[in-house]
Amino acid sequence: MRPVLGYFGPAGTFTHQALRSITDDEAIAFASVREALDAVRAGEVRGAVVPIENSVEGGVSATLDELIAGSPLAIRGEIVIPVEFGLYARPGTELDEVRQVLTHGHAAAQCREWLATTVPSAQVTEAGSTAGAAAEVARPDSRYDAAVCARVAGQLYGLDELAYQIEDNPGAVTRFVEVGVAGPVPPRTGADKTTLVAYMRVDHAGALLEILEQFAVRGVNLSRIESRPTKTTLGSYCFSIDVEGHLHDKRVEEALEGLHRICPTVHFLGSYPRADRARPVVGHGFSDAEFDDAAAWVRSLG
Amino acid sequence: MRPVLGYFGPAGTFTHQALRSITDDEAIAFASVREALDAVRAGEVRGAVVPIENSVEGGVSATLDELIAGSPLAIRGEIVIPVEFGLYARPGTELDEVRQVLTHGHAAAQCREWLATTVPSAQVTEAGSTAGAAAEVARPDSRYDAAVCARVAGQLYGLDELAYQIEDNPGAVTRFVEVGVAGPVPPRTGADKTTLVAYMRVDHAGALLEILEQFAVRGVNLSRIESRPTKTTLGSYCFSIDVEGHLHDKRVEEALEGLHRICPTVHFLGSYPRADRARPVVGHGFSDAEFDDAAAWVRSLG
Amino acid sequence: MRPVLGYFGPAGTFTHQALRSITDDEAIAFASVREALDAVRAGEVRGAVVPIENSVEGGVSATLDELIAGSPLAIRGEIVIPVEFGLYARPGTELDEVRQVLTHGHAAAQCREWLATTVPSAQVTEAGSTAGAAAEVARPDSRYDAAVCARVAGQLYGLDELAYQIEDNPGAVTRFVEVGVAGPVPPRTGADKTTLVAYMRVDHAGALLEILEQFAVRGVNLSRIESRPTKTTLGSYCFSIDVEGHLHDKRVEEALEGLHRICPTVHFLGSYPRADRARPVVGHGFSDAEFDDAAAWVRSLG
Amino acid sequence: MRPVLGYFGPAGTFTHQALRSITDDEAIAFASVREALDAVRAGEVRGAVVPIENSVEGGVSATLDELIAGSPLAIRGEIVIPVEFGLYARPGTELDEVRQVLTHGHAAAQCREWLATTVPSAQVTEAGSTAGAAAEVARPDSRYDAAVCARVAGQLYGLDELAYQIEDNPGAVTRFVEVGVAGPVPPRTGADKTTLVAYMRVDHAGALLEILEQFAVRGVNLSRIESRPTKTTLGSYCFSIDVEGHLHDKRVEEALEGLHRICPTVHFLGSYPRADRARPVVGHGFSDAEFDDAAAWVRSLG
Repeated sequence: MRPVLGYFGPAGTFTHQALRSITDDEAIAFASVREALDAVRAGEVRGAVVPIENSVEGGVSATLDELIAGSPLAIRGEIVIPVEFGLYARPGTELDEVRQVLTHGHAAAQCREWLATTVPSAQVTEAGSTAGAAAEVARPDSRYDAAVCARVAGQLYGLDELAYQIEDNPGAVTRFVEVGVAGPVPPRTGADKTTLVAYMRVDHAGALLEILEQFAVRGVNLSRIESRPTKTTLGSYCFSIDVEGHLHDKRVEEALEGLHRICPTVHFLGSYPRADRARPVVGHGFSDAEFDDAAAWVRSLG
Repeated sequence: MRPVLGYFGPAGTFTHQALRSITDDEAIAFASVREALDAVRAGEVRGAVVPIENSVEGGVSATLDELIAGSPLAIRGEIVIPVEFGLYARPGTELDEVRQVLTHGHAAAQCREWLATTVPSAQVTEAGSTAGAAAEVARPDSRYDAAVCARVAGQLYGLDELAYQIEDNPGAVTRFVEVGVAGPVPPRTGADKTTLVAYMRVDHAGALLEILEQFAVRGVNLSRIESRPTKTTLGSYCFSIDVEGHLHDKRVEEALEGLHRICPTVHFLGSYPRADRARPVVGHGFSDAEFDDAAAWVRSLG
Repeated sequence: MRPVLGYFGPAGTFTHQALRSITDDEAIAFASVREALDAVRAGEVRGAVVPIENSVEGGVSATLDELIAGSPLAIRGEIVIPVEFGLYARPGTELDEVRQVLTHGHAAAQCREWLATTVPSAQVTEAGSTAGAAAEVARPDSRYDAAVCARVAGQLYGLDELAYQIEDNPGAVTRFVEVGVAGPVPPRTGADKTTLVAYMRVDHAGALLEILEQFAVRGVNLSRIESRPTKTTLGSYCFSIDVEGHLHDKRVEEALEGLHRICPTVHFLGSYPRADRARPVVGHGFSDAEFDDAAAWVRSLG
Repeated sequence: MRPVLGYFGPAGTFTHQALRSITDDEAIAFASVREALDAVRAGEVRGAVVPIENSVEGGVSATLDELIAGSPLAIRGEIVIPVEFGLYARPGTELDEVRQVLTHGHAAAQCREWLATTVPSAQVTEAGSTAGAAAEVARPDSRYDAAVCARVAGQLYGLDELAYQIEDNPGAVTRFVEVGVAGPVPPRTGADKTTLVAYMRVDHAGALLEILEQFAVRGVNLSRIESRPTKTTLGSYCFSIDVEGHLHDKRVEEALEGLHRICPTVHFLGSYPRADRARPVVGHGFSDAEFDDAAAWVRSLG
């Protein structure tokens, strides 16, 4: 296995920025989430960074589908990146000289008011990606003066940052995960998250409730849930779920056992440290010590 | 410890009949449930038969309270007895000669229509107990011709059975338990019951629900539940519960662990064979094998 | 209809004492709960006082069964009576002259320690009832010196109270209800209770849970629940339930509608003021005003 | 209000195809979901078609956010479109003449195997969108021979369809909604869906459960649920939910009332016919008739 990471490229995207936040080493861009994950499975890379939630650049659905398909992979860590755009130009260009702006349609839409206010006379043209826009602007003979893109793209192509955080609605974030081959779960840090996909047996009003009760009776908090149509049967659903806690927390362990018993299929996609390092509030009765006490009591009954 | 059983007497009651259904050996009658159970605790008897549900002769509340108070006791078995009355007379008395009937008020009420129809001219007098009525009738110079009582009382005092099953509403049953000192739980028979008392932490709309969810998520069926005021705090409740299954059934074991974590106090009062020998229907996902599979799966995740 | 109340007699019992706590008028004693309730149905009395919980003198099971059978009756009020015994003697008898005590077995059991300590040389004989014991003691030529009975019995038979509150475990209470023919529900007092009996459709781990969820999602608190075998089908259960609140509280009304939809049968046995006049804590979202707001919001949606 | 529809453009996307499936009239493309919805709010268009689930071309997050922000809008209908790609070329071009293919990166990834097998020598270049790729290919002097795009784009630009359904994993669908200004809800069809967003009061293990119980106790089935971070408070969540049924179904109405009481905010986003015209299975006890019966029963109690 090559000791490098892969990622859902191209270079200069938010996924690239997420990757850069954990390593400065060489990394390989892949054209799709599937190719990135297949490279992990094939041992071509030791892991891959891919989007998992709210990505402006897509790929989220593919990530969940690909994690389940094929040989087992596991999430090893999560990375949360603020969705921040800047205006990047060839060195020497001043803000009031910007006449032609190139960027992706989503970025254009998210920075529309800022552009209309700050460079009102500039014409905005859509490119295939924000990273591609930065690459084009970097060409000395480009007809475009500036690109709206992620900071990582501006730096990558040696552009000057004319403005930053130019998005109209600041505060949005997008979430990525680092994925590796399934293996021993990383040790508990006390601020962990566990991701899984649970399939329902039947589609009735109480089916999701039964799944959630498996968590609630063990005091396991959900931090994300999303129903997803299963591809095999029309009208059938599975749930992609993040819970607070680690596989080795007893409350999570028992909840997973419960899910395994009532669901036709459960995919465990990994336990890993939370990006925000926040430690969950474990309710009364749900600590490891309380699980151990309870088991000891029951054993004492004969 | 004397190798005899005690029971809530006197002789000739339904409790006595319950005792006779499990042994023909000598047994000791006690004047109250407390005295019977204290005798078990003191080692004076090896066990005691006491009423636990719907007894026509009382004692049920006392039994649950006494099982919890003092040093631990455990239920070892249950006995279900049909509430059937007969009319018993001194040998030689014919039905049409019965003029004076003696019995307890409850028995009189339950056989009122039969008596009015069959011995319309008889006068009914109330005694302290049906057993006492039989004893009185057995005296050669008694002014009473017949007693309404349990069959065991008629036999005990050498009376003739003039009629049987004379209760106006047949089909009622009453339930008794055999209690011993707490010790190793008797082995599983596959048709077992477990009795416990669980205290709620707070008195809100969801508190009982939380207790029941501990059973429901593990597929444990309840066969009896009764709220009981706790003596220490006004407005506070505990629940006396029978569940289908044995302490050594994994679904019961895990449910008890769950209760232990969320309830301030749980009293385990024993696992024992059901009187009706009915095997519970264990739902999908709740057999021991499925619990073992689930635990193995979770271990395999790393 | 005669303007009198009936009660489960005889005179001198705790039921009689419960009756006396609400009226000093003439009242009619009946030999059984059924006879008392039948008299209400027949219009012979305007209502009846009968035991409903924890009665030392029995009748509780009969009350619930009889309320359901026959033409509809409704509970109009509840009465809580402390279980307190006294020692009553013919006028002129001093405590140290008491040699022969007559009482019911349950009362003897509950006052055993006090009797052993205070009148250690007295012999205790069991009578058919505590009220009957008082009547016997009142006879001038009785061989018994004193009776252990309720205060109402002592007063009724003109006996002297040699001691009061002689029960070994003070604090126990027993609960009675006043029952009338079904009719308009008495108005809300803000401190009301509602009694009902709900039948389950099937006997599975979640059936009781489904019933309780109907209350919990509307914030309706239970103050008593008791499973009771139904007579028609072996292994089938119904639940006798008291909830906090009045039929005209919207949260109770909607919960009853919910029960009616999921249960094969629900018997409404009345809304009536609580004996303790305690007002329930109504959780966030469950007041009448909040129900009205929610309904108005939904109507506003179109 | 102009009697035209708007949509999230540009022309030639799957959103455009969704629009075309409901009307052949003139329609206006908008550069972002927000612009399309703002145009509805401003009365510039009578409605807009926007993506709501699993779109390959993005916009889903924006749609939910924009529906909640600003003055009320309502979903009037849903449109489900299969994600099917074709290879489109200038008229006269044969499949074996295709050397240069232009398309969006996502489309390239989803058709990778087909392209590698069918036109192995072709070079694939990424464009800003599949619609833009079709537009470019349509230019007589374009250096690209064919575009991978939706059928609507091929038709729009007068291209020949060289192949269809060339995606490697057939069967995926993407879902769109037609949105209008909030107003009277369209009438029930018997096969309806209702969309809402519910905010949790607190972030504990049971909060989602409480929300779901509001549906489950009224027999309302969920067809989609997605947790979404709320922008105002970090670590706080709301849920975007589709349920089976119409605002005027009584079970949905009562569930919405329940949500309104327990959630700090609930946004109702419309009741509308399901795209698949499937009628939900309404469980025992949850039909309008059963709601009416239950209400009548409770009224009859007094």
